[in-house]
Formats: sequence, structure tokens, C-alpha cells
Amino acid sequence: MSDVARAAGVSSATVSYVLSGKRPVTEETRQAVHAAIDRLGFTLNPVARTLRTGRSLMIALIVPDIANPFYALLARSLQNEVRARGYHVVVCNTEARRDEEQAFLQEALQQRVAGVVMTPFRLAANAFDVFRGAAIPVVVSADTPFGDVDLVTPDADDAVSAALTHVADTGRRRVGVVAGPRDATGGDPRLKRIRQHAATAGLSITEEHVVHGEHTREAGAKGFERLMQTRRPPEAILCVNDVTAVGAMDTAERLGLDIPGDVALVGHDDIDFAALVRPRLTTIRYPAGAVGRAAAHLLLEQIDGRTHQRRVSVKADFVARASV
Amino acid sequence: MSDVARAAGVSSATVSYVLSGKRPVTEETRQAVHAAIDRLGFTLNPVARTLRTGRSLMIALIVPDIANPFYALLARSLQNEVRARGYHVVVCNTEARRDEEQAFLQEALQQRVAGVVMTPFRLAANAFDVFRGAAIPVVVSADTPFGDVDLVTPDADDAVSAALTHVADTGRRRVGVVAGPRDATGGDPRLKRIRQHAATAGLSITEEHVVHGEHTREAGAKGFERLMQTRRPPEAILCVNDVTAVGAMDTAERLGLDIPGDVALVGHDDIDFAALVRPRLTTIRYPAGAVGRAAAHLLLEQIDGRTHQRRVSVKADFVARASV
Repeated sequence: MSDVARAAGVSSATVSYVLSGKRPVTEETRQAVHAAIDRLGFTLNPVARTLRTGRSLMIALIVPDIANPFYALLARSLQNEVRARGYHVVVCNTEARRDEEQAFLQEALQQRVAGVVMTPFRLAANAFDVFRGAAIPVVVSADTPFGDVDLVTPDADDAVSAALTHVADTGRRRVGVVAGPRDATGGDPRLKRIRQHAATAGLSITEEHVVHGEHTREAGAKGFERLMQTRRPPEAILCVNDVTAVGAMDTAERLGLDIPGDVALVGHDDIDFAALVRPRLTTIRYPAGAVGRAAAHLLLEQIDGRTHQRRVSVKADFVARASV
Repeated sequence: MSDVARAAGVSSATVSYVLSGKRPVTEETRQAVHAAIDRLGFTLNPVARTLRTGRSLMIALIVPDIANPFYALLARSLQNEVRARGYHVVVCNTEARRDEEQAFLQEALQQRVAGVVMTPFRLAANAFDVFRGAAIPVVVSADTPFGDVDLVTPDADDAVSAALTHVADTGRRRVGVVAGPRDATGGDPRLKRIRQHAATAGLSITEEHVVHGEHTREAGAKGFERLMQTRRPPEAILCVNDVTAVGAMDTAERLGLDIPGDVALVGHDDIDFAALVRPRLTTIRYPAGAVGRAAAHLLLEQIDGRTHQRRVSVKADFVARASV
């Protein structure tokens, strides 16, 4: 501190004010102090706390779509779990873009955050290797594992099977899927799961009845329209999440199609609004609160140095409402 | 760098790996390097970039409720505007708690973020003074000014007036308000605005027809119930935002009350889901995308050192749907 003060020609207290921001200083003084720091090639506070403890009290939650209420609820749940330990959660929205995913990870690394919880989307599979090197805990929340990083994942086989059986019980046979994009890192595990259980339920899914797109309302609207324009449209459509299902409803309304009269619709996640839209959305409930709690648990255990390379399944349930 | 390496008894390259996380090191080495840094009382990278430039590329968006889609959309809009300049937005959710608001501001200060966009809720009015000292740009998005900090604020008088006229035109006279909490820093400007325009529209708002609570769905459900339990319940209820209006709908459904047959309902914000709930929500549209763009504009101008102490109004509109 005194080296910087000497080099800048100011008092140590002034250096402290510049770095802490605790008292106003003139722009000239601020620049002089920062110039001195640059010349000396090192810094003191405000990162001293981070350096003393090795890292900050920030946990970065990196998600593909902040406008999807699933992630808002996950964030809130994670925050509630880690607050008692003094940690704060900052939410980073990647819009499912690989460049944003990488940029936020890079920042998390440079800030030496206390931990990362992430739903990767287009990230390279080895992206977390550097975090191991830096001893920064990472938990992935996703439908497929990401290397041997700690994972919170849905146990959704029974729920998907129940959804398809329910569709079959209503006499429908031709099923379509509004699936995720083709280039997602983990493939499309939700589509795969639907395919696996469809045959058992006596349902058929032809290639023309699977459309790919982002996990957004706009993509859901577009995907639904493409499915309904096929030669023999599906009698029921399963969507990769509730947000895309809401997009499908937008198109149904625009085209004057009745749900479930003309076509049945099933979502995934059971976001708050699933029960509020009309018709009320039949969906697979994947409880974001429980996912957040599980992620917090795994992360805190890593922070405490207890365990790692674990997988926790959170049970999904089928919720029958009015869209099938 | 070489001082730390000498003190830790490792090579400069190893120090670099520990700090950058770019290659794995043993836990022993990591601890030795950090101990050396502590002893020497200063640091080098990974914050060197922050120090060279004076700050990071992070912009902190601090909001009271991440589960309110208004803020998700604001976040996305802000992010889209600043991305081209290389900035990244992290979203901090305070749950309208003063301790969380302070904690996130403290972190933003210590991390020397590039800027802060905040919707304060219970924060002390002088909370941003230290940011001026630290020369970190701040923009407040709120219905009332926060000292002389740059402000994005709704121009909602015409919209509220139109909403109340619409209510009066349907023959309703007794109006209730599900308002915000009594202890919010800026008071309750939305309630004030409604009161101002009610008399002109020929409507009466008695004291028993104003209930206070958080800006949440749960508080909306509770507030609506209290209003409907008064001796002569209101014929129309205006809510502080759409999320509380959705809570009011929850209660209406539970109590078997018809909206708008038994009581009319008006929201505020026009979140995505306002048009999806049934009945479709009549509301005051305060466009989150435009708010985010305005906030980005003010913030970037401050970052460029051009202007500050400015106020930008974003026009709100009345949107008549089916709940009145």
C-alpha cells in the first residue's frame, strides 16, 4: 500500500479511498493511484479479501434463458440455500450462446468465485477442466452428464411413460415432438426419452413429426406450426419445455386450432404459469426448487472439501391438466 | 510475480497456473502460492486486467424479484445493448431485502464492476454515494428518483388515467388498490398516481380499500382476499404489478369469484403472461425492453464520461383486455 502511495505521491489513506470507494476522491487522484498500481504491476485491496480467503463469496449461476421461470425459481432456491453460509448468487444469462457461456465461465474463473452452478447448452465438454485446476467447485444441472462434474439431473422415465400412456389412453396414436436444437452439447435427452417410451405406449413418432429449435417461446410457435403443416399432422405434441409449449399455444390460437380438440399438448418443467394458461397445460413437473436445493447441497459439500463427482437425481412427475 | 514465486518456492509459471487456473496444480502448491501472496500482501493476475483498465467488464443488474418476468426481460434487453461493447450482465436478486441490496452493492464495489443498474427497494437514499467516489456508473430504474442518480422512470400518468376512466365507463365506482409495502424507500408512487387520477375519473378510494404488501404473487393473493372481505368490497382493484394481479386471480379462483363479473382487475407492467392468463389481464404496459435499452444508454454514456444526472421517461400505455 505504501509503495503505491509513494509512487502516486499521495497518502496511504488516499490510496485506500481510491480502491475501496469509501470516500470521494478527485478524478486526477484516482488516475494517479491507478497509474501507480499499473507501474508497480500489482494491486492491493479491494481484492485483498478474495486473496486472503482464496476466493469471493459469489456463486455464479449460469443459465441458458433467464426469461424461463424455471431458472428464476432455481436461482431463488439456490440463493435461499446458500444465504445462511454468507454466499450470494449472481445469475448469468447465456441465451444458449456458446460465446456467452465461455465468457461467463472465464469471468467466474478470473473473479475466483466460490462456485459455479451451470446448465450448459453448447459448451465444449472439457470446459470445466480449468475449474478443477483452480479448485473452484462446479455443479452442472442438466439432463445429461457433463464429464465427471457433479450433476443434478431429472429422473423422468416414469413421468414421460405416464404422459405417453395418458396420450394413448385418449385414443391418439400419431405423436409429434417440438425438440431442442441439433447442436446442443448433450444431444437431446428429452427427445430420446420420449422416443424410448413411445413404442411401449403404442405410439408412433415418424421423422417428419420431430422438429428442432431453441428452447424458446418463438421456437415453440414455429415448431408447432411446422408440425401442423405436415401431410398428416400429429394428434398429440410433446414439447421440450413449458416455454415452447406456450409458444405452441400462441400458434394454435393464431391458426384457430383447438387444444386439446384438434391436437393435444404436453409440456415439461411445470413452471408457475403452466397452470394459469388456457387450456391449463398438462406437463412433466421437474421441480426447480428441489433442483436448486440439490445443486446447493452438492456445491457446499465441494466447498467444504468433502465430496465430488456425484450425481443426484430429482424425481419428475406427470401432471395431467386440460391440454390432453 | 517473481517475488511470489520466490516466496512460495515454485516457478513463476506455476504461480501463473495457480492464479489463472489454466493448468491443474496440486492442492499443496496452490496453498503455498496463496500463502506467499498473503505474506507479501499483494496480488497479480487474475485481477491485473481489472486493475489495468480500472475495472471489470461486468455490469451488475440488481433487481428485487428475479421471478418477475419484467426483470428477466429488462435483463435480456440490457444485455443485448451492452454486448457489442464487450460487457456482460450479471443479475443479482435481492428479494426486496435491504441486507441483500447492500451486500450486492458492496460486492459490486469491491469487484469494481463497470456499472450498476438497480431497482432499489428498501435501500438507504445515500447508498450510491460511495459509487460516485469510486467513479462507478450507476443507473436506477424506478418510479421515483433516487437522489440525483441517473434514472429511468415510467411516464404513466396518461395510462393510469385511461385505466381509471375505463373502469368508470363500465359503471364501477368503488376502487381498491393492492399496493406495495409501506416501508419501501421511494414510498408507493404507483398508489399515489392512482389516487391522483381517481377523483378526476369520478372514482372513490377509501382507506379500507388500500392494502399494502410485497410485490409478489403471494402478497397479491392475500391483499385481494382482504379487500374482498371488507364490508362493501371494491368493484374494481388495481394492483401494483402484474405478478400481484396474478396472485389476486389465484384467490378469485379459490373463492369462486368471477373476474370481471364480481370484481374488475387491472395490473401493471404487461409481462408476457398477462395476455395468457384467463381472463386476459387488463394492464398498464411498462415496456421492460425499452426500460433496459434506456438504462443501457444512460450507463454507456456515463462509462464514456459524457453525461450524468439525467432522467429518461419511458411511456406507459393502457392495455384493455378482459379483466375489466
